[in-house]
Amino acid sequence: MKAHYRVNIERIENDLYELRKFGFNPEDRGIYRPGLTEIDMQSRRWLMDRFRANGLETRMDGAGNVIGRRGPDGRPAVAVGSHTDTVPCGGMFDGALGVIAGLECIRVLNEQGIETVHPVEVISTSEEEGRFGGMLGAQALVGALTPDWIERAESADGELLKDALEKCGLSPAGVLRSRLSPNALLTFLELHIEQGPVLDKERIPLGVVEGISGVFKWLIRLKGKADHAGTAPMNMRSDAFMGLADFAHEIYRIIDENGTEKSRLTIGRVELKPGYAHTIPGEVDFTLVGRDLDESVMLALAEACRKVLSSIARKHKLMFEYEERSWLSPQNCHPSVISYFEESARELGLEYKKMPSGAGHDVQFFSKIMPAGMIFVPSVNGISHAPDEWTQWEDIENGANVLLNTLIRIATQEQPF
Amino acid sequence: MKAHYRVNIERIENDLYELRKFGFNPEDRGIYRPGLTEIDMQSRRWLMDRFRANGLETRMDGAGNVIGRRGPDGRPAVAVGSHTDTVPCGGMFDGALGVIAGLECIRVLNEQGIETVHPVEVISTSEEEGRFGGMLGAQALVGALTPDWIERAESADGELLKDALEKCGLSPAGVLRSRLSPNALLTFLELHIEQGPVLDKERIPLGVVEGISGVFKWLIRLKGKADHAGTAPMNMRSDAFMGLADFAHEIYRIIDENGTEKSRLTIGRVELKPGYAHTIPGEVDFTLVGRDLDESVMLALAEACRKVLSSIARKHKLMFEYEERSWLSPQNCHPSVISYFEESARELGLEYKKMPSGAGHDVQFFSKIMPAGMIFVPSVNGISHAPDEWTQWEDIENGANVLLNTLIRIATQEQPF
Repeated sequence: MKAHYRVNIERIENDLYELRKFGFNPEDRGIYRPGLTEIDMQSRRWLMDRFRANGLETRMDGAGNVIGRRGPDGRPAVAVGSHTDTVPCGGMFDGALGVIAGLECIRVLNEQGIETVHPVEVISTSEEEGRFGGMLGAQALVGALTPDWIERAESADGELLKDALEKCGLSPAGVLRSRLSPNALLTFLELHIEQGPVLDKERIPLGVVEGISGVFKWLIRLKGKADHAGTAPMNMRSDAFMGLADFAHEIYRIIDENGTEKSRLTIGRVELKPGYAHTIPGEVDFTLVGRDLDESVMLALAEACRKVLSSIARKHKLMFEYEERSWLSPQNCHPSVISYFEESARELGLEYKKMPSGAGHDVQFFSKIMPAGMIFVPSVNGISHAPDEWTQWEDIENGANVLLNTLIRIATQEQPF
Repeated sequence: MKAHYRVNIERIENDLYELRKFGFNPEDRGIYRPGLTEIDMQSRRWLMDRFRANGLETRMDGAGNVIGRRGPDGRPAVAVGSHTDTVPCGGMFDGALGVIAGLECIRVLNEQGIETVHPVEVISTSEEEGRFGGMLGAQALVGALTPDWIERAESADGELLKDALEKCGLSPAGVLRSRLSPNALLTFLELHIEQGPVLDKERIPLGVVEGISGVFKWLIRLKGKADHAGTAPMNMRSDAFMGLADFAHEIYRIIDENGTEKSRLTIGRVELKPGYAHTIPGEVDFTLVGRDLDESVMLALAEACRKVLSSIARKHKLMFEYEERSWLSPQNCHPSVISYFEESARELGLEYKKMPSGAGHDVQFFSKIMPAGMIFVPSVNGISHAPDEWTQWEDIENGANVLLNTLIRIATQEQPF
C-alpha cells in the first residue's frame, strides 16, 4: 500500500463552486463559459490568482492556456489538467474537475512537503469545447496548428478565431508560439467525468481510459423517386426512407458481425425530401458516425456499412452515394500511464474498468508527443453538457486521489517511462 | 356493339393546348394556374366562351364552378367534368382532361344530333387542388361547406379564402348559395389521368375506379434519450430513430398480414431531435399515412401499426404517442356507374382494370349525394403534378370514348339508376 496520499474534497468542492460562478445562469442553472470570451478570460484570471496563491509559477501562454508550475527548473514536467471552458448551458464538472483536482494535488504536495524529481504543472487548456473546432490550446501546445488554419477558423455564428483571440489580448502569432519545446513535458494526466452511462450503470467508481476511440463520419444519400403516397402501390415504389430504415435495422447485426462492445454506429441527422406526409420520400440525406478503439475494426465496420447500403439500394431501386467527411484514427493512451493509474486504483482499493473514451479529450493531442493517459469518474445517468450534469463528491474524491497518487508516483521517479 | 360513338382527338388536343396557355411557364414548362387566382379566372372565362360557342347554356356559380348545360329543362342532368385549376408547376392533363373531354362529348352530341332524355352538364369545379384545402367547388355543390369553415380557410402563404373569393368577384355567401337543389343532377362522371404507375406499368389502357381509398394520417412521436453518440454504448441507448427504423422495417409485414394489394402505408415526414450527427436522437416526430378501399382493412392496419409501435417502444425504452390527425372513410363509386363504364369499355374492345383511386377527386363528394363514378387513363411513368406529366393521345382518345358512350348510355335512358 503505497498510495497513501489523500486530497481534501471540501477544497475541491469549494473551488468548483467558485469557478461555476463564472457564466452561471440561475434561470436554467447552466454555465455559459465558451472559450475565448470575456467570461472565459475572467475565469482564467481567477484561476491564475488561485494558482499563485498556492505557490505556482503561473503564466498564460499565447493560446490562452493557463499553466502553473511547481518544482525544479531544467527538467521535463509531469502535467495534470484539463480545460475550464464550457459548452453553452454546460455543467460544472466537464473539464473544470481535471484542473481543480490538479490544483488540489499541488496543495497536498505543498502541505506534505513533497519534493518531486520532476516539476509538476497544472494546465487549463484553451477552447477545448469547440467554438472554433475544439482543443485549440492542446493543439497549440503540441504544435498541431498551422497559420492558415488559425487564419480561417470561424465559429458557428460567424466570429473569426483571430478576432476572438484579439479581444482576449491574444493573437494568432501567440498561438503558434505556444508550442512546447521538445522536452518541456514528461507526461500529461487528465481526470474527467465519463460523460456516458457505463460507470454509473455498472456502479464502478473509476474508469481507466485505454484510448480515445477513432471516429468516422459519412454523409449518405439514398435517391429513389418521389411519388404520390396514394397512387403508387407498395411494390412500385422507390422509397428512399424505406432504404434508410432497412439499413438502420441492420446496424446491430453489422456490429455483432464486425465490431466489438466498444463499437458505436449512430444515425443522428436525417433529412427527407420532399418531406411531405402524402408524398413518398424520393431522397434521404443522413449522417452515419462510427467509432471504435481499433482502427482495423473501424475499417471493417465502414466496409460492412458500405456493402449493406449497396445491397439495400439495389433492393429498393435506389441510388446510393456517400462522402466520408472525416476519419480520425483512434489514439491509445500510453500503456505505462495506464499501469500507473491501475496501480494507484488497486492500492486505494478502488474497483475500476478499463474502457475507451467515445468523446474527444485534450489527452488525445498530448498523446501524440508524450506518454499520456486519463481516468474517468461516473456521470450520474450519463448526462453531461447540460445543467443536470452531476458526479457524486465521493466519486470525485476517489478519482482525485488516484490522480494525486499517480502524479506523485511518476513525478518522484528519475525515469518513470 | 352499342358503343359506336367516337370523339375527335384533334379537337381535344387543340383545346388542351389552348387551355395550357393560361399559366404556362416556358422556363420550367410547368403550368401555374392555382384556383381562385387571376389566371384561373381568365381560363374560366375562356372555358365559358368555349362552352357557349358549342351551344351550352353557361354560367359560373357563386363558388367559381363553371357549368354548361345542354338539353331539356326540368329534369336531373347527367354531369361530366373535373377541374381546370392546377398545382403550382403542374401538368396539362390533371383535371383539364375531364373537362375538355366533357366538352368534346357535347360536340359529338351536337354533330350527331343526339337528343338525350336527361340534360347533360359539363362542370369545371373550382379550387380542386387544395390552395385552401381542396375540392371547394365540389363541396359547395353538394353542400358540404359551412360558413364558419369558409370564414377561416387560409392558404399556406396566409391568404384568406374569403379575400381570394372577393378578388375573383365571388363571395362566401355565393359559395353557400352554390349548393345544388336535390334533383339537379342524376350522376357525375369523371375522366382523369391515373397519377400513378399501375396502368402504365401493366400496359392497360383504362382504369375503372372502384372507389376513392380512405385515408388516415397519424402524427407519431417516439421519445427516448438524447446522448453523446460516442460515450453511450449501443446497449444503453434509448435511440428514438432506431425505434422508427424498426417500425418502418415492419410495414411490409403489417400489410401482408392485415392489408390488401390496395393498402398503402407511407412515412413521408421525419424530424429528429436534436438532429446532430454526433448525438443519439432523443426524439423523433413522423407522419404515417395509411390507405385502403375498405374501412375495416384501414382499421386493421391502424390497429396493427399501434401494436407494433407499442411493442417497439417497449423494446427500445421509448415513450410512444400518436395523434390521429384525420380519418377519411373510403368512398365507393356507384356499382351501376361502374357497370356502365365496364360495358362501354368492353364494347369498345378496351382492356380495363378495376382499381382504387389513391388520390382524392371531385367524384368523392358527388358520390355522397348521387350515383357517381370515374375512369382513369395511364400516366406515363406514373408522373403528375409536374411538367413531365404525360398521357399518350391514343389513351386519351380511348378514355374519352368510354366517357362519351357511357354518358350517352345513361342520358338516353328514362331510369338509368
